[in-house]
Amino acid sequence: MTSSMESVFDYTLCIAFDVPKPFAEEIIKTVSGPGGFKRVVILKTVPEEDFKEAKQSGEPLVILVARSLGHGAIKYLCDDYHLPKEKRRVRWIHSVSSGLDSYKLHDLLEEVKDIPFTNGRGCYSSILAEHVMYSMLYFYRQTWRSLASRAAHKWDPFNMVELRGRKVGIIGYGDIGQATARLATVFGMEVTGVRRSAPSEKVDKYGALVVSGDAERDRVIRESDFLVNIIPGGERAKQFFNRERFAMMKPSAIYINIGRGTTTNEEDLVRALRDGVIRGAAVDVFEQEPLSSASPLWDISDDKILLTCHSAFMTSDFALRGVECFMSRARLFGSEAFASYAFLVDENFASQHSCLS
Amino acid sequence: MTSSMESVFDYTLCIAFDVPKPFAEEIIKTVSGPGGFKRVVILKTVPEEDFKEAKQSGEPLVILVARSLGHGAIKYLCDDYHLPKEKRRVRWIHSVSSGLDSYKLHDLLEEVKDIPFTNGRGCYSSILAEHVMYSMLYFYRQTWRSLASRAAHKWDPFNMVELRGRKVGIIGYGDIGQATARLATVFGMEVTGVRRSAPSEKVDKYGALVVSGDAERDRVIRESDFLVNIIPGGERAKQFFNRERFAMMKPSAIYINIGRGTTTNEEDLVRALRDGVIRGAAVDVFEQEPLSSASPLWDISDDKILLTCHSAFMTSDFALRGVECFMSRARLFGSEAFASYAFLVDENFASQHSCLS
Repeated sequence: MTSSMESVFDYTLCIAFDVPKPFAEEIIKTVSGPGGFKRVVILKTVPEEDFKEAKQSGEPLVILVARSLGHGAIKYLCDDYHLPKEKRRVRWIHSVSSGLDSYKLHDLLEEVKDIPFTNGRGCYSSILAEHVMYSMLYFYRQTWRSLASRAAHKWDPFNMVELRGRKVGIIGYGDIGQATARLATVFGMEVTGVRRSAPSEKVDKYGALVVSGDAERDRVIRESDFLVNIIPGGERAKQFFNRERFAMMKPSAIYINIGRGTTTNEEDLVRALRDGVIRGAAVDVFEQEPLSSASPLWDISDDKILLTCHSAFMTSDFALRGVECFMSRARLFGSEAFASYAFLVDENFASQHSCLS
Repeated sequence: MTSSMESVFDYTLCIAFDVPKPFAEEIIKTVSGPGGFKRVVILKTVPEEDFKEAKQSGEPLVILVARSLGHGAIKYLCDDYHLPKEKRRVRWIHSVSSGLDSYKLHDLLEEVKDIPFTNGRGCYSSILAEHVMYSMLYFYRQTWRSLASRAAHKWDPFNMVELRGRKVGIIGYGDIGQATARLATVFGMEVTGVRRSAPSEKVDKYGALVVSGDAERDRVIRESDFLVNIIPGGERAKQFFNRERFAMMKPSAIYINIGRGTTTNEEDLVRALRDGVIRGAAVDVFEQEPLSSASPLWDISDDKILLTCHSAFMTSDFALRGVECFMSRARLFGSEAFASYAFLVDENFASQHSCLS
């Protein structure tokens, strides 16, 4: 039985994605190979030039966006918002990243209204989970001390601390938190995930205890050896980790932020590290990025901070991974499974969900 | 029903173990607590003084040894080797470490003849497995680059490399190798363990492929992204990893040695790292320890070497862990399970197994 249904792969794919050069060719191969899109247009200069023909063709379009290029591409291609939704030219927008901040959707609410949106949610969880394990081992194996010993040609055996048996608290227990729990429990760690809504099961399939509510959350903050912050952004979570919260943690606790920089009061974090309120922090995201060279965070010593430049999720095949994920969604286009990934962006959405991870 | 069988806990326990001070008290509590040994003597000065009373008492003895203190204790307490074995005073010797080198058993073959020996084999596997994962992440997350970026106050996002999908070859696939495989497979790595004898199953319960034979071993050396050396010591393995073997590896390979220093030709390793024959090495053990301050290994840069001072297995609760392991063996004393852990040290043994891990 052949289906007469139109396939998403018959649509024209418009890519607005500052692809790292070594991967550009492989990405094109991935989206336009056998079973892929028949027509692919890539943004190289400005949408008004590169996407002009696609826009005027009258063919249905799909947009694949990443980072800052996304805003202009959406604005240019989705300007037919005066039409009824079934007549509009863009049928689907996919963001390679989980976060949508860089597209400034507040300014494009009319443009994106009614167009199904998907994002990279879940595609990169394992990359970030690896980073969390790395951060823990960085501190417990006292990396700075081994490096100093080598530099000084000094035989300096010292005690490492095992992860086994330690408590990990994950605040914001979604895909990334679960991928982290999956690894940490195999190391013999006790994992507790804190969610906003009450969990359906007490212990999930990764062996993590799942809890909700402010009282439970505070208990986790108090008792964890490692506190992993993966809270989504948004107003409510702004500077959630502040002086008061750091004071609740164990003095031996390590704070790990791989979520959103805005959820941490950086001044308070610097003070907590300097004053020994907490033992250390692995920080990948910041209130303002790039982090100002004047930030006192740069001056915290290696035994107290592991500072990475919002690159915990960046791996050599990140772009390719993101595109593979897009293709797996494309193969579901139109199905119920696709609908479970897709969402619509309206005013309310944009203010609640700066990040969807 | 009560048993009239003599319990090992009725014997006198002689401890010759340079216990780190913070743990001494906890260790004594562990061995002499409820259900533990009723009489415990600890070596503080010399065996001739501290163990004199125990030796002369005529009571059966158990010796718990670690590091250099073991030799003198065994020599002093096991000098009744003219007696038939059932009349000898020492009934069991347990070594906290897996390696037996430091007891110089070559010189004590008469003393230990017929006395069941056990060691810490299997007790510390997870500590070393953590170190292997740490070493991999140290290199793939380019630790040195994050530290340099912090020191220079420079926003420098860069690509990490994921462990997921990478190949790990473990040469010497025993307890430690299996503990490593258990973690690495959960990271999505492809693990192959190389054993001396043909494996009973192709894929073991940790998801590792198990192989044997020189051809398979060489294939693993050629194809691995991470090559983990856990070969036991002994003459046959001496300098097994030499210039020829490094040349077989991928130029992108990371060599990890947590087994025995004598299995690596260090001069060849230095050359392989300097000349880019391999990408990097995490080395915890050395041909001579402590490593001479003149060794060129100290001068290899942090992006190519992670040098630790035979401390990968040393964790803050190492001593306690070792003693808990001893107690779990003690509870099995006299049973079939105990017999499966115990071995006899004769001339042949001593020359074959400088290490039993």
